[in-house]
Order: sequence, then structure tokens, then C-alpha cells
Amino acid sequence: MIIQLSKSISGDQRKHLCDVLTQNKYNLTDVKTQAENYLVCIGKKEIDIRTIGNMAGVKDVHIVSDDYKLVSRKWKVHNTTIDLGDGVSIGGNDISIMAGPCSVESDEQMQTIVEHLIKNKIRIMRGGVFKPRSSPYAFRGAGVEGLKMMYSLCAPHGIKIITEVMQVSQIEEMMPYVDIFQVGARNSQNFNLLDALGEVDKPVLIKRGISGTIEELLHSAEYVFSKGNEKLLLCERGIRTFETAYRNTFDINAIQVLKEKSHLPVIADPSHGVGIRNYVSKLALASIISGADGVIYEVHEKPEEALSDGQQTLNFLESEQLVDKINKLLLSDICS
Amino acid sequence: MIIQLSKSISGDQRKHLCDVLTQNKYNLTDVKTQAENYLVCIGKKEIDIRTIGNMAGVKDVHIVSDDYKLVSRKWKVHNTTIDLGDGVSIGGNDISIMAGPCSVESDEQMQTIVEHLIKNKIRIMRGGVFKPRSSPYAFRGAGVEGLKMMYSLCAPHGIKIITEVMQVSQIEEMMPYVDIFQVGARNSQNFNLLDALGEVDKPVLIKRGISGTIEELLHSAEYVFSKGNEKLLLCERGIRTFETAYRNTFDINAIQVLKEKSHLPVIADPSHGVGIRNYVSKLALASIISGADGVIYEVHEKPEEALSDGQQTLNFLESEQLVDKINKLLLSDICS
Amino acid sequence: MIIQLSKSISGDQRKHLCDVLTQNKYNLTDVKTQAENYLVCIGKKEIDIRTIGNMAGVKDVHIVSDDYKLVSRKWKVHNTTIDLGDGVSIGGNDISIMAGPCSVESDEQMQTIVEHLIKNKIRIMRGGVFKPRSSPYAFRGAGVEGLKMMYSLCAPHGIKIITEVMQVSQIEEMMPYVDIFQVGARNSQNFNLLDALGEVDKPVLIKRGISGTIEELLHSAEYVFSKGNEKLLLCERGIRTFETAYRNTFDINAIQVLKEKSHLPVIADPSHGVGIRNYVSKLALASIISGADGVIYEVHEKPEEALSDGQQTLNFLESEQLVDKINKLLLSDICS
Amino acid sequence: MIIQLSKSISGDQRKHLCDVLTQNKYNLTDVKTQAENYLVCIGKKEIDIRTIGNMAGVKDVHIVSDDYKLVSRKWKVHNTTIDLGDGVSIGGNDISIMAGPCSVESDEQMQTIVEHLIKNKIRIMRGGVFKPRSSPYAFRGAGVEGLKMMYSLCAPHGIKIITEVMQVSQIEEMMPYVDIFQVGARNSQNFNLLDALGEVDKPVLIKRGISGTIEELLHSAEYVFSKGNEKLLLCERGIRTFETAYRNTFDINAIQVLKEKSHLPVIADPSHGVGIRNYVSKLALASIISGADGVIYEVHEKPEEALSDGQQTLNFLESEQLVDKINKLLLSDICS
Repeated sequence: MIIQLSKSISGDQRKHLCDVLTQNKYNLTDVKTQAENYLVCIGKKEIDIRTIGNMAGVKDVHIVSDDYKLVSRKWKVHNTTIDLGDGVSIGGNDISIMAGPCSVESDEQMQTIVEHLIKNKIRIMRGGVFKPRSSPYAFRGAGVEGLKMMYSLCAPHGIKIITEVMQVSQIEEMMPYVDIFQVGARNSQNFNLLDALGEVDKPVLIKRGISGTIEELLHSAEYVFSKGNEKLLLCERGIRTFETAYRNTFDINAIQVLKEKSHLPVIADPSHGVGIRNYVSKLALASIISGADGVIYEVHEKPEEALSDGQQTLNFLESEQLVDKINKLLLSDICS
Repeated sequence: MIIQLSKSISGDQRKHLCDVLTQNKYNLTDVKTQAENYLVCIGKKEIDIRTIGNMAGVKDVHIVSDDYKLVSRKWKVHNTTIDLGDGVSIGGNDISIMAGPCSVESDEQMQTIVEHLIKNKIRIMRGGVFKPRSSPYAFRGAGVEGLKMMYSLCAPHGIKIITEVMQVSQIEEMMPYVDIFQVGARNSQNFNLLDALGEVDKPVLIKRGISGTIEELLHSAEYVFSKGNEKLLLCERGIRTFETAYRNTFDINAIQVLKEKSHLPVIADPSHGVGIRNYVSKLALASIISGADGVIYEVHEKPEEALSDGQQTLNFLESEQLVDKINKLLLSDICS
Repeated sequence: MIIQLSKSISGDQRKHLCDVLTQNKYNLTDVKTQAENYLVCIGKKEIDIRTIGNMAGVKDVHIVSDDYKLVSRKWKVHNTTIDLGDGVSIGGNDISIMAGPCSVESDEQMQTIVEHLIKNKIRIMRGGVFKPRSSPYAFRGAGVEGLKMMYSLCAPHGIKIITEVMQVSQIEEMMPYVDIFQVGARNSQNFNLLDALGEVDKPVLIKRGISGTIEELLHSAEYVFSKGNEKLLLCERGIRTFETAYRNTFDINAIQVLKEKSHLPVIADPSHGVGIRNYVSKLALASIISGADGVIYEVHEKPEEALSDGQQTLNFLESEQLVDKINKLLLSDICS
Repeated sequence: MIIQLSKSISGDQRKHLCDVLTQNKYNLTDVKTQAENYLVCIGKKEIDIRTIGNMAGVKDVHIVSDDYKLVSRKWKVHNTTIDLGDGVSIGGNDISIMAGPCSVESDEQMQTIVEHLIKNKIRIMRGGVFKPRSSPYAFRGAGVEGLKMMYSLCAPHGIKIITEVMQVSQIEEMMPYVDIFQVGARNSQNFNLLDALGEVDKPVLIKRGISGTIEELLHSAEYVFSKGNEKLLLCERGIRTFETAYRNTFDINAIQVLKEKSHLPVIADPSHGVGIRNYVSKLALASIISGADGVIYEVHEKPEEALSDGQQTLNFLESEQLVDKINKLLLSDICS
């Protein structure tokens, strides 16, 4: 059960409410986000919500039968939209495009990509500076210095930045330069990181784990929300199956399920999803037709020279053609 | 290596050719299809194909590095099209729609569906009469009588029939009433059935196994082709993964890979692919945007009353809206 | 619900019983096996079994909550044993060892293996003569002639034969030479083959599908049993997962589950299960410690020269050491 | 390539060595562990190792073709043993048993378990105080206070402690009370945590990820080793597959592969591996027969009352019988 509290609830009203709930064997979790105050109540017996709904200081009450609560569409039927400022928002009628290199490499590389984004009216740049790599001997990213450089190139043009955060201790130093914190597939159940991002007032995109269930992804989002941050995006990025013809199996089914189960925006990552350049653009379009609120993909002037993930990165021409087709799809009424 | 033989090759020319190949340690498989005569040559050493190409009676020679040969796009770059007669063909510029009930149930049920197909200009009807069921106690289909009834309703309207064949002994009795034999996921590696269908002059649609690799599906098609039947269609119908939110995980990635690796038409089956009605239509559109040559889906006047698979079956309105969107997608140039 | 009928049940008694059941909305399946007559009753409502139990001609009645019925341990708590004659039986206190080549190749090859079996007191030989192969161009087995040769070498020594049957039409010609029909992983849900084997009075070993669930394997066994053959063995032979370090992932967990859910003997096939020779022997022992009633493995005098599956085949020394350890394990009380 | 450096290598010798390697395009990683100094050299071209081997300050040189280096058995053929003090060591001829509750709950609970361990001569206790839970509303462990309590009960009896660390910031406070840090399946690729544990002089057990490959597990161990900590244990704890009959699919195959590929001790966790109490003991024995150096399992006086994981936890009698059988297995020569 989720109880939305009035912002003007008094201490006494609150105490009374909690007493009633505790007497009814609920465990209570206080959630104060950027937008609202909630009380998440976990219990076996559901009491008559009208009793609660009529109590002073209570704005609304909802029964949520899912195990996750705050991220469920069962209490919030409208889509959540996330405003990044400068006219950039995610989750409305538009499709958000996030594009950029796998890794931030050099000033020159980033400059060409920024120009590509401006030319194609792409408002959000992706680019990794902390890179999770299977081997400790592989390139592990340009670090915060790379992020600052990225920021200095993007900010003047109102281009927003999404980049991966790998551990709690990086959050603070990244804060000024990041518009969306990305939690990678390998950290999808790094609960301490999720807890910490719940205390930050910046949007967080959570990628599905390499073999994470949809239920687990929603629970991971619940971690962040329940700590106070409701600016959340969910991301499908391919799962691990028996098939070896591609790096991962992009699970397009997840998009419709996530949109049905949750009010949060859903972003598709076909680059990591399938891991093969030739297949990325059509998967991006297929994701949009499936209801995704946006796509995130890798682009590089010369993918074959990229320090990482070149085999799944679009070149500028491919990216331009993709943006063009996305726009055509939006103008048609096929997605409606 | 694939050698296309001239139809006028003489016995002596043929013998000479085979001698040369055998001396070079090739194992030879003679393939005579509806369209061509081939010699499939499997060996470790590849000889200079110009030597072969210049021999009398040889039309063309191709090295094919894939393990499958005749179904590979490495020797036949153009898309295969399959003509069903009455102006119905698969694999060209159009999108083939195959729709119908999971199971043929009654004359009345079939009549309403035929009307739905006519109204929506759907030219191919699907409908099972031999049903593979996990439990021996479940409904196992109406049998050949059901097929005859289906045929008597469809044929007058030029509606073609696709239906599943489960074993070799059924082929002959089904022959007069079937336009496309369907090999189900559970029989995807039933090699005796594939062999037998190779000797038939009717198109065959092969579904990917429940956890069949793309490579295995292509090998299964090679079975049929190498026995003499090159009227083949490949079908993606969902794979088994760890995810339990849907019956199967529709693997949209497979469509692009199959189109790249093979010249055969690719059909998407989103009904079985995901197993949940609400998600079927968008997956059908996503498949077409990914390059599928057609879709096959389940439709029923009252899905909730269907004897099998009701939970993944569209009703008439949903089917009509899907056809409408497919047409819009074709008219746009997004798929080009 | 399973009703065991008395063999002396009269036509009238039977009719009366069926009438009562039909009035209670049960679907009835008549099952007459080598041992017993059963009536399998599928219905939503369970009536008081005492009413049925007291009716004339009824020997026993059992409620079985599983979807599979006759193979369930819920009605038959004792282990099923299968007698092959000549003092060879499966499913009792002993461990059955089935060993032999992947494929029957030559008289000489088979002769050496027969000697190896005799020397090590192995009473059942495996050996494929119909080989399911992914590619139509691969070696597909020596056929019935190979089987006859195998039989002529084994029978004089009382060595029993297990070999794979791939299609219905092979059953009759194989009958005289086979002691156990094996249904391969790819045919695990070839329901027509299972139906046909249900009408045969020879033991049938059913392998789990490459990605078959335990539930599906039990249903496949139910197919055979419900057609009249209760001489059944279940076989775990590795499943398909994301891991690529081995050919398949031998699922040792399945052994305990199958033993718990069903009264049928369970055989482990570590050769196909993991597909790598070095790992086979320890997996065989681990299977026995897990409760398997027997193991089936591949052995060849010179595995590196075998026509198929050499990489997972034990040589004679390895096989001998394995038999020795199995015997030690049996003498200890660790498995008890 | 791995170069073992002499401890007395001079600055000049070292510089000269590095110069030669850098000129040959190697990337060098300096590794100083508790035991040795290494130089891990990653490069495309392998130079003649004798040249390097003869240089001053070099103790030994090894080519390692695996992507992981220091954890590979290709350079270190002998099993690594880990000494915990008080006569407790892991990885030798003995089998290490680690048992205890899923979660540390209360002083009373822990007291009974300590007595059980003492009685059965189990020298290592497991017990979680930081619990990774899918839902943020679930019980998340007793924290450091729980650990201190556990320590106060175990230390007087020379019982060693293994417990999970979830994030870098916990390491320091846990240090005094922990004998083995456990990295859980969800953190198997939490590279920052692995890096940090590389700088600690305490053994670390790394669990395989829920769908982690064996290769990935070895890479994760390489992370820790390459930062300076070579006291490492690898743990198989079940993988995620399509099968739903158990919580996870315990992958017994991994044990033999890990033992072959790496010199590190391998521990089996059948409790999490299969997730069902009845199957745990036999899987533990099967793991030992497969070559595992030890087992870790959950035990509780009253599993049905445990705050977490009760359904996979042994009671005292089951645990006692398991220890007894492990001892019998060790006394036999079946595992040799």
C-alpha cells in the first residue's frame, strides 16, 4: 500500500497515522522525494483504504499488489516525464535520442561527435569515463577528467550528459557534470550504489542486468525511488541466452512489459543489446514501435578506431539515417 | 562448394566432373530441386573453382564458407520468392500476412475467420489440425477432417493454407489441402520429417526450435533443400530464456541475422513468440521494420473461448488494426 | 485421478464406472499396459475417491495433483524396476552401466568394445546406428545392418542393447535386435514417436530435451505410458545454457528432482551432458551419489579415431577405472 | 606473460627490464602480493622468454595464453592453499566445510550453531550480516554489530568467519572480525569492490555471477590478484537457466573446469546452488567427488523459522549426516 501524504501534514497527524498502520502490522518506509512524501506500507493484511484515505494529512491511498510499489503503474497510471532543463525532457510524446561514443577518448574525438549531435538535433550525449571491463588489464576509461572535458564541450550547446557511475565514491565528484547517472548492467543489483543514488537529485537510468529479470529491474528502481529519487529511467540492453550469433540477445519484449508494469520511461540500448553494428538501427526503430520512450546508441566518427566497442558503434552516416527514420516514424501514426 | 549443373549435362560430362571432384577428396551430394540441379561438394581442400567452372555441363560454381550451403546467401544473393498461385507470393516487396486460429475447431468458427480474412485482404490462413501438446490428455486437433473442412472454406476464395505436419505418414493425406507445410518448433530437428518434406513439391515453413540456434535452423532448412525442395521459409517464434514474464522470448535479433545469412524468406510469429495477446501487434510491426517478409499470428472471433492458445490470440478488431498499421508501414519508406 | 482396474472387471462393471465418472465431468483415458489396466481421469472436480474405490472391478484409486499422472510418484511410491532378462535389471539396488561407442562403425571396432564390456562386467551396450546430425552432409549412421551386426556380437554374451530410434517406421525393423529403445534429446517431444513406442513391449529410455524442462520430460514419459508401455527410463543428458566452456551443461540437479517426482529409473548421460572427455568420469560418480539408477557413457578403443563424438568418449582404461570407482562407491554406504 | 621478480631486484635492474619490455610493446602491470612480486605483461607479440629469464632480478618467466594470467594454472601448476591460522587451511588434501545461517539473527541463534559446529568439528562459520535483497523492503541484515557478536562467539573456539562484504566502505570496519571476505554473486563484477579487496591482506571468496561465465569468474579473481591479494577462493553457487523446478541450476561442471584452469581452491555452495533443502546434501557430496576443495552451506537449528533462505537451509541432523558422509568419502579412495 502506498500512502501519499499532504505536505502540510502535522507531526501529530503523522504519528496517529503511523500508529494505526503499525497496529495493523504494517512495516512502514518513509519516502520523501523531490515531488512528494509517501509512506510505503508492507503488510500481509490490507485494511480498508477508505479508512486511511479519510485521515487528516493523507492525500491519496493506493493498494499495489506488485512486490515493487512506487515504480508500479498500479498506483500512478500516467507516464512519468523527466525534465533535464533547456527544453530537454524524457517520457512525453517525443522520442529521446542519446548518442555518443562508448568511451570518452580525446578532445578531438568528442568535438566531432558534438558537431554530429548538433547537426542532427540530438540533445543528449552518452560517453563512458568509468568503464567496467571484464579484464583488469583493459582500458578503464578517462575518469573524471574525461567527464569534465565532455562537459565543457556539451554544456555550451545545451547538450545533456548521461554517463555511467560505478561506485558510491564517484557520485560527488561527478555531480556537477552529469545530467543522468547511468547504472550499468553489472551494477544493476549493486544495492549500495542504488541506495546512494536515491539520495541524489539527478535522474538515474538503470540498465537491466545481463540476466536480470524484469521484476528485478523494477525492484532495483524501487531501491532508488524509496530512498527519495523518483527521477528514474529503465533501460533494456540485451540479455544473455544460449544463442552465440550475437553478443547479447536484445529483448524487445521487455519494452512493452516495462511500459505496462511501470510509469517510468523506458529507454532501449540496441548497441549493447545486440552488439553488432549492422543490426543496431533497425532494432532502434523496432524499439520505438514497441513503445520505448527513447534510444541510446553508440556513435563514433571512425568506429573501427574506437578504443572500445567499435564493432557495435554506428558511424555518422548511419546515425544520421537512423535519426531521419525515427523522425519519419514519429510523423506517421504507426506508433500511436 | 556448390556446383550448379546445366540441365543438358550429359552422362559422360557428369561422370568426368564427379571423378575430378572425388579425386580431390570431395564428398558429393546430388540435389535436384524444382528449379535446378546442384552438386554439393564437402571437402577440406577447396580447389580452384575456375577449373570446375570451365568444365562442360557446369553452369556456375560457388565457394560457400558456411557449414550450410544451399540455403546460404553466400552463393545466392537475391531473395528467394515463393509463388503460391492465385497472385499470392512470399518474399518479394510485399509483406505476407498469415492469420487464423490456433486450432481448427468448427465449421462456424472457421467461417467467421474466413470472412475476417477476406475483409482484410489476408490471403493465407493458418490453422492447426494436428496439435503438438505437452500432455497426452490435452486436445490434439481435428485431424485431416478438420483440414478438409478448412480447405473447402478457403479454396473458393483463393485463400491459401498453412498448417503443421507432425510426422512423415501425414504428408500424403494432407497434400491436396495444404499450400505450405509447417514444421513446428518441437520438430525443428526431426530430421526424418525434414528429409521427407524435401521430396515434396510444396513450400515448407520451418520454425526455429524452442532453444534452437540460428545455425541449427539454417541446417534444418538445408536438410529439406538438399533432398530437392527449395521452396522454403524460415520462422522465428520465440526462444526459451530465464525470463518468466512471458511464455517465450521473441528473438527479434534473429530476423536480421537470418536475412543476412540466407536468401530464404523470414516469417515472424509473435503470437507464439511472446505468448501474450497485448504484446503481439507491436511485435509484428517491429518484426516488419526489422526486415521480416511476413508475419503469422493467431486470430479468433472470441479468443477467450478458443480451445487452445486463447491467451495469445488477437480478436478481429485487433487483427484489423494490425493489418491497417502494416499497410501504413509499407506505404512509408521507413522499412526501405 | 488414476483408477487401477481389476483384470476381472466385467463389461457391465466397467460401463457403470465410466458412466459415474462421465457424469462427474471427467475425461477418461483407458490405459492397458504390460502390467495393469488403468483409467486416467482428468477433470476439474475431484470426487470422493472412496465412492470410486468401493465400486466393483476397481482395485485402487489415487488422486494425483501433478499434471502428469501415471509416471508420478504420488500414486506409486515404490521404485519401478525393469527386467531385461538374463539377470539384467534396472532400477533396483544396483547401478546399471550402459557403455559403448557413439556410432556403430565396424565389426572390428565393436568386437573390441564387446570384449571391454565383458571384462568389466558391463551388461548393456549403447551404440548408435541412426544418428541425428545437425548437418545433412554428416555421417548418419550404419542403419539396421549395423544394428544386426551389433546384436550378433552382443547376444551370445547376454549383453543387452540400447540404441536410438528416430522415427516410427524404424521401430518394427529394429524390434528383434533392441533391448531398450532410446528417444534422443531432439525427439524428446516427438509425440508421434512417443505414441508409437507406447504400443511396443520393449523398454524405452527418454532423454530430456536440449532445453526441455523436467516437467516436459515427465509429460513425454506419460505419452508412452498412457499408450500402454510402462517400461520407461528417464535420462538427464545436459541442457543448453549461456555457458560456452562445455558443449552442454550437465544438470545434476535434475536427477534428485526426477527421483522425487517419479517412480521411474533415472539414468545419467555425462558424455553428452558435458561433452568433454576429462570431465565424464567424475560426473558419472557425482550422478550416482545424487541417486541415479545408472549411467550411460561413450567408450571406444581409440576415441580420437571415432567417426563421431570422439572428444567426449572414454578410452578403455578410463572406462575401467570408472567402473572400478562405481563399484567402490556402491560398497561404501555413502549413497544410502 | 608473467614475470616473477626476485625480491632483491635493484632499481636499475628493474628499470632495464621494463625498458626492454616496453620496447617490445608490452603493457606492464606491477603486482606485489603477500608472497611475491610479479610483472604482468600484456602484448601481442611474445618475445623469447629465455631472454627475459636470464636477466638480472628475474626469478621466473611464464607464457600464459589465457586472457586471465595470475589465476591461471598455466604458470602455477600446484594447488594454492590458504592458511587461516589455528590449524585451519583450505586447498590441501582436506575438505573445508563452511556452515552457518543465511543471516546472523540473534545471540541465541548463533550460540546453538556454534555448538553444532564444534560438535561436528566444522572450523569455518558462514553468516551474513549485510544481505543483498531484491526488494528494498526486505530484511537487510544485522550489520557490523551482528558481525561483532558472531566474532565474539566464534573466536574463543578458533572458529573462522566468512561473511559477505557488499561495498568498499564496509571493508575497514569488518576487517578485525572477518577471516574470509565473501563477494556475492550480484557483486561478482563489481570491479571497484574487487580492486579494493586486492589491497587487503585477507582471503577473498568470489562467487560466480548469477549468469556469469567461468571465464568471467576467473577474470574477477584476476582483478583481486593483480591488485596484490593472492589469497583467493572461487565459488560455484548455481546459475540462472530456463528451468523453474529449482531456484538456480547448480552447475557441477564448473568445478572440474575451474580446477583445471586455475590453481585456486574451489568451493561449492549447494544451498544457493539449487535452493531446495532436500537436494543440498547430495549436491555437496557430488561436488566433492567432482574435485571441490570445500563446501559452504546454510544450517540453522530451526530452518523454518530462519529470517531468510529457510527453504534451502539444513537442520542440525541433516548437517551432521552430511559431515559424516563427507568424512566417509574422504576415507575412501573414490575421490583420488
